[in-house]
Amino acid sequence: MRPPLRVGLAGLGTVGIGTLRLLTHNGALLAERAGRPIIVTALSSRTRAKAGAEEEGRVWYDDPAQMAKASDLDVIIEVIGGTDTARSVIETAIASGKHVVTANKSLLAEHGLHLARQAEAKGVALAFEAAVAGGIPIIKAIREGLVANRLSSVIGILNGTCNYILTQMETSGRAFEAVLAEAQALGYAEADPTLDVGGTDTAHKLALLTSLAFGAEVDLDGVSVEGITKITPVDIAFAGELGYRIKLLGIAALTEDGVLQRVHPAMVPRDTPLGDVGGVFNAVVTEADAAGRSVFEGRGAGPGPTASAVVSDLVDIARGRVMPPFVTPVEKLVKRPRAALDDHVGPAYLRISVLDKPGVLAMVASRLAAQNVSIESMIQRGRAPGGAVSIVMLTHDAREGDLRRALEAIAAEEAVVEKPCMIRIERPDETPVP
Amino acid sequence: MRPPLRVGLAGLGTVGIGTLRLLTHNGALLAERAGRPIIVTALSSRTRAKAGAEEEGRVWYDDPAQMAKASDLDVIIEVIGGTDTARSVIETAIASGKHVVTANKSLLAEHGLHLARQAEAKGVALAFEAAVAGGIPIIKAIREGLVANRLSSVIGILNGTCNYILTQMETSGRAFEAVLAEAQALGYAEADPTLDVGGTDTAHKLALLTSLAFGAEVDLDGVSVEGITKITPVDIAFAGELGYRIKLLGIAALTEDGVLQRVHPAMVPRDTPLGDVGGVFNAVVTEADAAGRSVFEGRGAGPGPTASAVVSDLVDIARGRVMPPFVTPVEKLVKRPRAALDDHVGPAYLRISVLDKPGVLAMVASRLAAQNVSIESMIQRGRAPGGAVSIVMLTHDAREGDLRRALEAIAAEEAVVEKPCMIRIERPDETPVP
Repeated sequence: MRPPLRVGLAGLGTVGIGTLRLLTHNGALLAERAGRPIIVTALSSRTRAKAGAEEEGRVWYDDPAQMAKASDLDVIIEVIGGTDTARSVIETAIASGKHVVTANKSLLAEHGLHLARQAEAKGVALAFEAAVAGGIPIIKAIREGLVANRLSSVIGILNGTCNYILTQMETSGRAFEAVLAEAQALGYAEADPTLDVGGTDTAHKLALLTSLAFGAEVDLDGVSVEGITKITPVDIAFAGELGYRIKLLGIAALTEDGVLQRVHPAMVPRDTPLGDVGGVFNAVVTEADAAGRSVFEGRGAGPGPTASAVVSDLVDIARGRVMPPFVTPVEKLVKRPRAALDDHVGPAYLRISVLDKPGVLAMVASRLAAQNVSIESMIQRGRAPGGAVSIVMLTHDAREGDLRRALEAIAAEEAVVEKPCMIRIERPDETPVP
Repeated sequence: MRPPLRVGLAGLGTVGIGTLRLLTHNGALLAERAGRPIIVTALSSRTRAKAGAEEEGRVWYDDPAQMAKASDLDVIIEVIGGTDTARSVIETAIASGKHVVTANKSLLAEHGLHLARQAEAKGVALAFEAAVAGGIPIIKAIREGLVANRLSSVIGILNGTCNYILTQMETSGRAFEAVLAEAQALGYAEADPTLDVGGTDTAHKLALLTSLAFGAEVDLDGVSVEGITKITPVDIAFAGELGYRIKLLGIAALTEDGVLQRVHPAMVPRDTPLGDVGGVFNAVVTEADAAGRSVFEGRGAGPGPTASAVVSDLVDIARGRVMPPFVTPVEKLVKRPRAALDDHVGPAYLRISVLDKPGVLAMVASRLAAQNVSIESMIQRGRAPGGAVSIVMLTHDAREGDLRRALEAIAAEEAVVEKPCMIRIERPDETPVP
C-alpha cells in the first residue's frame, strides 16, 4: 500500500469535526478504497479547546497559514469559512505545493478563478465538492459524469435553510418571520440569516455550477438575486391551490444572448422532482445534449453530508487524480456574455392588493395589456366593498421587462394598496417521454 | 497537449454509432476537458456496411479480437453485447495492456470479478458506467462521490423498457401484452423482450450496484428475480386507488443476515422520487451513513445517454484515472452471505379471486391469520353471487415466507378461482426531515 495521505485540517466547526469523525469511523474502508490511508496529522482552529481529544497525536497550529506551509503535509482542508483567513490559507497551501479541499462557496464564487489559476500552475488540486449540495456529488456529476455533454441549463434548490423555511410555511401556514425564528432556535438557520434567506448563498453555489456546466468563467456579479423574505402565507396558499409549490431556485441557462443566471423564489409544479423536494434537501436538474435530463437530490448541508463530500475529494487526491478545478483550464474558460433578465420570457404569478371598487380589475387588465402581458387565469376571492382584496393572476409567457413595467404602472395607481407581488412560474420543459 | 487517446470501437449498433457521433460532435470540447484528444482510430463490427462513411480514416477489423491486440490502440470500447465474443475481446484487450470501456451488464454480472482481476493485474481500467442507467452517472456516484460512506441500501428502477410498459399500462388501462406489442413496434422493447420484462436485465444491473455499494463480490445468483409479465390492469388500477404506482424495482439491502438482493414489481407511493419516475427514465436511491439519502434520476438507455456514459469513462482514462473496477480490489471484496428472501419483512398487496359466496372472506382471513399475517385494509368491490370477485388486501408488515405459505393455503381452496396475486409494498423509511 502506498504511504498515507497526510492531511492538515483548518477549521473545527461542525464540518471540520464531522470530517475528522468520518475519517476515523470509516478509516479502514477508506484506506482500501483509496489505495492508501488518509490521516489527519495536523489541526488548526481559532479555538484550540474545540479540538478536545481529537488533538491527541496530531500537530497543533495556532496559525492555519503556518500549517499550510508545513513540509510534512500533502493536503490542506479549509473549512474555516469566510474569505480573509481562508483565502490566505489556501493561497499559502497552493504556493507550497499542497492540494486543497474546501467547502468555501463564497470564497470560490468570488475568487475561484484566481485560486484555480494558482492551483493549475502548481499542478495541485483545488477540490470543492463540499461547496455545493454536500450530500449530492453534483460537482463530480457535472465535471466528470456528464463531461461528454454540452449542458443547456442547470436548475437547483441549493439552500437547505430556505427550503426548510418554505416547507414549514406551507405545512404550518405561518409567516416567514415566525418560521425563521423557529429555524434559528432549532439550529437550521444562522443567527444572521441574511446570506441564506437573501439568496446570496444560492447565488454563490449557482455561480460555481454555471462555470462548470458551461465552461465559462465564474461570474458571481452576473447573478440576479432575490431572496424569500417577501414570500407570504397567502402566496404559498395560492400556489398550493394552483398545483404549485414555492421554492428558492438558482437557474442558469445558456441562451442565444449568453448566460442568464438568476436566483429567485419560483412556483414549480408539484409532483415534479423540484416541486417534491422538501425540508433541508437540495436538488439539481441538468439538461444535457447527449444524456438528456438528469436529476440529483440529497441533503444539502449538515456535518455528515458535507464531510462525505470533503472526504470524496480526499480520496480522489489520494488516488492522484488532479485536474483543473473547473475542468477546463482557467485560460480556456470562456467569458460568456450576460443575457439580460429583462429579456427572459416565462409565465408568472401576480398578486395585486386593490380596493374593492368598480373598474379596478379593468384598470389592472389594461395596464398589463399595454405591456403585452396576457392573462391565463384569474382568481378574485371574497368581497370587501371599500376595503382591500387580492387579485391573483397567472400570466401567459411574458417578457420579464414587460411584466416589471406593467407592475410599476399598476403600483402607481391609487386603488392599489401595496406593492404588487410577482413570482415566476418555472415549468421545465418536459423531456419528451415516449 | 498530451498525445491523443487512441480508441478501437467494437460494435456498431446504436450505442456504438452514438458514441462515434458524440465524440465527433463534442470533440473539441472533450479534448479541452480531457487534456488530450480522444480519437476512434479503429472499428470492428459484424456488419461492415454499418460503418458507412464512419469507416473513412479508420482502420477496419473484421475480427474484433484482432483489433484488441493492435499495438497502436490505448483503449477498446466493447459495445458488441452478448457474452461470448465480447468476453474474448475484453480479455484480449486487457492481456495486451489496453484499457476497456464496456456497456455489457450481463457479461460483467456473470464474469465481472474474473475480468476485474485481470484488469487489476495489468493495471488497466475496466470501466462500465454505461452498463447501468446510462444517463445517470451512478457508477461514479457510488464508487467516487459516495466513496466516504457505508451504504445500507440501493433501490433502483433500472429497466426503461419495463418502466415504459408499466407507465403505459397505467395511463391507457391496457393489458401487458398489448402495451408490450406496441413498445416493440416503437422500438422501446426488443423482439425478444424476455431479459427486460422477466427482470433479468434489472438483476444484472443490481448485482453490479450491490457489489459497488457494499464492497462485496458480485453475486448474480444471489438475486431473486420476478418480472412484470403477470401485472394486470386491475392491479395497476387498485394501486392507483390506494395512492401507489407499480414499478419494477431492484433492491439491495445490507441486513443483519447478509445481503438481500431482489428484483420484483412493487407498489411505491406516488409523490416520492421512485413513484414519480415515468416512461423510459431510471432512478436510483441510496442510503448512506454520512450523506443520508441521495436520489439520482435520468434516462436509462438510448444512444445519447449510453454514449454519454461511455465517453465519460474515456475521459477518465484519458486523464490517467485508473482504479480497481469495483473500487475495492477484487481480492479484498467481501463474500457476503445471502440473506433469505423468506425472512424479508414488509407490507404487501394481495388480490385474491374468489367465488362470491358466504364464508369465503372468513376463510381467507383465517388462512392469513394462521401464518401471522395481519390485514391493514380490505376492499371487496361489486357482487357477483355465484361468480368470481376480487378481494384486495393490504397487509401489515409480514415475513415473506409466512405470506407465501398463507397464499399457498389459500390457493388450494376450492372457492379460489385463480392463483392469488401478491405485490410487495415498498415505502422507503422517510429520512427524518426536520
